[in-house]
Amino acid sequence: MSYILTTQCRDEIGLIAKITSLCHEHNLNIVRNNEFVDTEGKRFFMRTELTGTPSERFLSQLQTNLPEGAITHLHSPTKVKVVLLATKEAHCLGGVLLKQFENALNIEVQAVIANYSDLEPLASAFNVPFHCVSHEGLSRNEHDKKVGDLIAKYSPDLIGLAKYMRILSPEFVARFEDKIINIHHSFLPAFIGAKPYHQAFERGVKIIGATAHFVNNELDEGPIIVQDVTQVTHANNAESMAKIGRDIEKTVFCKALQLASEYKLFINGNKTVVFK
Amino acid sequence: MSYILTTQCRDEIGLIAKITSLCHEHNLNIVRNNEFVDTEGKRFFMRTELTGTPSERFLSQLQTNLPEGAITHLHSPTKVKVVLLATKEAHCLGGVLLKQFENALNIEVQAVIANYSDLEPLASAFNVPFHCVSHEGLSRNEHDKKVGDLIAKYSPDLIGLAKYMRILSPEFVARFEDKIINIHHSFLPAFIGAKPYHQAFERGVKIIGATAHFVNNELDEGPIIVQDVTQVTHANNAESMAKIGRDIEKTVFCKALQLASEYKLFINGNKTVVFK
Amino acid sequence: MSYILTTQCRDEIGLIAKITSLCHEHNLNIVRNNEFVDTEGKRFFMRTELTGTPSERFLSQLQTNLPEGAITHLHSPTKVKVVLLATKEAHCLGGVLLKQFENALNIEVQAVIANYSDLEPLASAFNVPFHCVSHEGLSRNEHDKKVGDLIAKYSPDLIGLAKYMRILSPEFVARFEDKIINIHHSFLPAFIGAKPYHQAFERGVKIIGATAHFVNNELDEGPIIVQDVTQVTHANNAESMAKIGRDIEKTVFCKALQLASEYKLFINGNKTVVFK
Amino acid sequence: MSYILTTQCRDEIGLIAKITSLCHEHNLNIVRNNEFVDTEGKRFFMRTELTGTPSERFLSQLQTNLPEGAITHLHSPTKVKVVLLATKEAHCLGGVLLKQFENALNIEVQAVIANYSDLEPLASAFNVPFHCVSHEGLSRNEHDKKVGDLIAKYSPDLIGLAKYMRILSPEFVARFEDKIINIHHSFLPAFIGAKPYHQAFERGVKIIGATAHFVNNELDEGPIIVQDVTQVTHANNAESMAKIGRDIEKTVFCKALQLASEYKLFINGNKTVVFK
Repeated sequence: MSYILTTQCRDEIGLIAKITSLCHEHNLNIVRNNEFVDTEGKRFFMRTELTGTPSERFLSQLQTNLPEGAITHLHSPTKVKVVLLATKEAHCLGGVLLKQFENALNIEVQAVIANYSDLEPLASAFNVPFHCVSHEGLSRNEHDKKVGDLIAKYSPDLIGLAKYMRILSPEFVARFEDKIINIHHSFLPAFIGAKPYHQAFERGVKIIGATAHFVNNELDEGPIIVQDVTQVTHANNAESMAKIGRDIEKTVFCKALQLASEYKLFINGNKTVVFK
Repeated sequence: MSYILTTQCRDEIGLIAKITSLCHEHNLNIVRNNEFVDTEGKRFFMRTELTGTPSERFLSQLQTNLPEGAITHLHSPTKVKVVLLATKEAHCLGGVLLKQFENALNIEVQAVIANYSDLEPLASAFNVPFHCVSHEGLSRNEHDKKVGDLIAKYSPDLIGLAKYMRILSPEFVARFEDKIINIHHSFLPAFIGAKPYHQAFERGVKIIGATAHFVNNELDEGPIIVQDVTQVTHANNAESMAKIGRDIEKTVFCKALQLASEYKLFINGNKTVVFK
Repeated sequence: MSYILTTQCRDEIGLIAKITSLCHEHNLNIVRNNEFVDTEGKRFFMRTELTGTPSERFLSQLQTNLPEGAITHLHSPTKVKVVLLATKEAHCLGGVLLKQFENALNIEVQAVIANYSDLEPLASAFNVPFHCVSHEGLSRNEHDKKVGDLIAKYSPDLIGLAKYMRILSPEFVARFEDKIINIHHSFLPAFIGAKPYHQAFERGVKIIGATAHFVNNELDEGPIIVQDVTQVTHANNAESMAKIGRDIEKTVFCKALQLASEYKLFINGNKTVVFK
Repeated sequence: MSYILTTQCRDEIGLIAKITSLCHEHNLNIVRNNEFVDTEGKRFFMRTELTGTPSERFLSQLQTNLPEGAITHLHSPTKVKVVLLATKEAHCLGGVLLKQFENALNIEVQAVIANYSDLEPLASAFNVPFHCVSHEGLSRNEHDKKVGDLIAKYSPDLIGLAKYMRILSPEFVARFEDKIINIHHSFLPAFIGAKPYHQAFERGVKIIGATAHFVNNELDEGPIIVQDVTQVTHANNAESMAKIGRDIEKTVFCKALQLASEYKLFINGNKTVVFK
């Protein structure tokens, strides 16, 4: 059997030796290992791919050996459960659903929830439950409560905002803390907020991009996971930039979900640690 | 003989036909042609590579045929004259000097002017006159006047700011209008101003970049010419980002000078038109 | 109304003037223009975006004005009809179908034909007719004949080989001359033929790629349309390279179809001219 | 003090635990660590950045603890000594010399040896000894002997072929086994041998590239270290491809030397392990 062990804790000398020695004692073979020490923040992060059968005592011993407050998880190779939120645009949602169909992502899309019904055919095409929760006539909090309750029924590991064009209430963000991944259609921190391609066109930039990030309560300010860009020219207007950009958004969003699903992604304050 | 004709004017129907027909009448063969119509701003831009011997009447006839206010130039294949301004960092200055040595840029660096003397050995290594104009004890305007007078003696076609770490006075910018190309060490409009790599590190971005742009009187706000980026990770701090970024700065700065030297670059309001 | 005029012919002096002057006489406004002269092969290529209403005489006059053998087309803005051939892999087929669903490609997929039935659910999900034509018990020529007859009923403008893992007979290639676009999973000419990712792994390359090309009778030797690559490392084996590579294949294949559908693609001997 | 420990040996269970525990016992703090297991070849590779003062017993104990035949090195932070071989082209040689001047590479170029004298001014500009060893009138073996004897006087850690346009004799390659890094101007294995840009132009590729690799006795077949590519179009001929390509060659060659100088590079049969 194959497992992924993730560890994060206060940094101190000898951590790798402690963890890997314990694995060795428990007859767990390390087939791949990544570590990172944030020397400024004094935090230690490690991801270890193991083969073998960890006993029940392994994790408890590990926890005992590590500094107080250490966060350790042993992930068995099941699929990561994801609920996707969308509005009207098909490309990010479709990109994930297609990759799931191809068996190229270690995720199971449990449901799609949208505030319009336009994308129902796309979800249905891939046999994924679709729920339309219209925001019409509801306050932001009421709508977020309704959507949140629906999400909660699925108990997902992750919530992916596949171009969900609504600002989330602090209550919603708190309810699903560190679980919400958004795709923003610019290379943040450039062009925060609405209509980034129009902003990019007005500024006359020669590159456009997209950013996948965790959501916190500052608009487009959460920890960045993945970014990518592409070249544009004077001949592109905001509309053609948007068309080109959708490919980048799709790719970047899928890559962020993939990293999360492979447990290669750690939140470190307002940044992320991403093991390749 | 080979020439480059550049044209920009108010857009109207039939411009390409007028220009190319006149070339044909004058026995000028078009070997390469690029046009762009800014439909929003109603401006027409064209770059035409010609073989043949244009008579004196060609340009005057062309001017007569085009809309009032048209700007036309016939560039003969001489090198573009450039004065480079620098401070202490070697990479952008060295990048240009090396490429000039390789015969890879259609430019002649007439002189290097710096506010410190650190880079004198580098300029000397490539047999380029070096002038140190210290800013110590001078007001911004006094220093800019001194530097400007020195530049003026060379009558350069272009002024390249090869990591010249000083903010230019409006007088200096006006004196060399549309001739000053700067390299900024971020993908603008992200991280305007000082210490962009520190800003990038603090924000936790996954890409860093550089931007070459014309200088106007808004800090880092002039028309963008070239941008490029590269991937960074959580393992990079501001210092290592700066080290990686210097390669991008060098490349982007050289590319901007090259575009200018090949007359592939037009200013269009606060944007540029760049023919590849 | 908006049209695209494509022209290719023997090069001679004054061609741009002739074509653009005729457009002007016919009150056709040029909104975008691209030309290329292959000076070695002495061929002229031009793509012109026009607004206005071309009369019937426009094209015949154009033909008269151009060198003998000139190939001119006036494309009205209808969708380009495509039949896709596939085998078992979903990513290229799904990539095109999803982009069609997003309205991001100027094409209409008329049908999917595969030699296995695995992809029927994917075609059905996007409401595209699916035909399974098994090769079992048939010679290559018999199978190609059967597939070709089925294609012929649709009279497509293009045939896209979306990872169709069969070598085509010369008769099939001749029957659909200059209409067949293939995606090969390497950056040609590296790793021609079978199992390119295994070849790439064995050679220890640090980049892998994909190539879209027109099909002729030499294996993987037809005119190249689009190529793209991505970085890999020592940690990738052939299987993980294939997984990474599928994203590139999907992107490159879609881009090639898009270029064809926008009439930006010309065959020039064993090369292509691609206007961006 | 800061050290880099490199380890390679036959793979077996518990290696990371052994090495890191020994570091811990010797009060050596691991600030960065990379491992790779080649599961197919059953080889283990590890690079460890340490702070502390390793005693004399550390390495001998380490060697005892590891499988027989293990290769371990403890590198102190001195500069890696390099002799560069060149012919007439300036860009790769100049690229390295400029980066050395910028303090951007952890290397010391001890000397430049060329079979023509053209590059003497460039080496002199950077105060590096230059030796011209003409091949005229000498057999390949005689010339290689002469060059090799000259190199041997410098006892370099690495020999960089900065566009050295000569094929090396097996004797020369054996004499400096695993120390010679070449830059080839194509994305290998495409376009092995002479005139790769001409080959690329003839084939009509849309990307060109460069490859840095260790030299063995098969032409352009040694372990690949770094590759990079850039887009070209139908408008590029072999000459303009070469011009564009020189930038890639320069970048790729510098990056390979940098990886070697930071001990991030291991040879693994006919491949390399490269830690980023």
